[in-house]
Amino acid sequence: MMAFQLSEMAQFSSTAPLRRVLFDSPSLRILTFNFEPGQEMPVHEHHADAQVAFLVLGGEGVFTCVDSDTTIQAGTLHVMPVSEPHGFKATSRLRMLVFLAPPF
Amino acid sequence: MMAFQLSEMAQFSSTAPLRRVLFDSPSLRILTFNFEPGQEMPVHEHHADAQVAFLVLGGEGVFTCVDSDTTIQAGTLHVMPVSEPHGFKATSRLRMLVFLAPPF
Repeated sequence: MMAFQLSEMAQFSSTAPLRRVLFDSPSLRILTFNFEPGQEMPVHEHHADAQVAFLVLGGEGVFTCVDSDTTIQAGTLHVMPVSEPHGFKATSRLRMLVFLAPPF
Repeated sequence: MMAFQLSEMAQFSSTAPLRRVLFDSPSLRILTFNFEPGQEMPVHEHHADAQVAFLVLGGEGVFTCVDSDTTIQAGTLHVMPVSEPHGFKATSRLRMLVFLAPPF
């Protein structure tokens, strides 16, 4: 069993969104993505049959999925196939906990 | 894309822990488990090659894994194979968000 205190996962980088893998296995990968305000992950997609779920742990941003923009905030969970075009832009310090199943 | 507001997932039942499936697919299932104080899920295990991750959204309880007890609290994430014996007992209103990959 592994345990993580999420409040300790609040590191950021001024140069790019900070990605940290917490757990990795053949069926599940868990990561954090932390963005400084203005940092973004451009819209992209993956040619894989996998699901991604992300939980916003803190902050706020704009989540683009297919052709629509949604404001994302702490306390919201979002789930989609990784094959759908998706991207993020932080409007404040944005912290996300990401579950990828299966990893690819 | 599906979106959930986690603060809205705070229902409980006086008769048994309340289980709600938020999302289900061949590679990932997402559920909430909400316990009233004193409610428990007895120690059990699953004969499956899958990982379970659970995030404590609120409250406190005792998590038994293999032979050790851990106090779990809001803001902690726990990950383990479903084949490890595990159980829960709530000491306050306990809310958990559970990721199962793959479902079985």
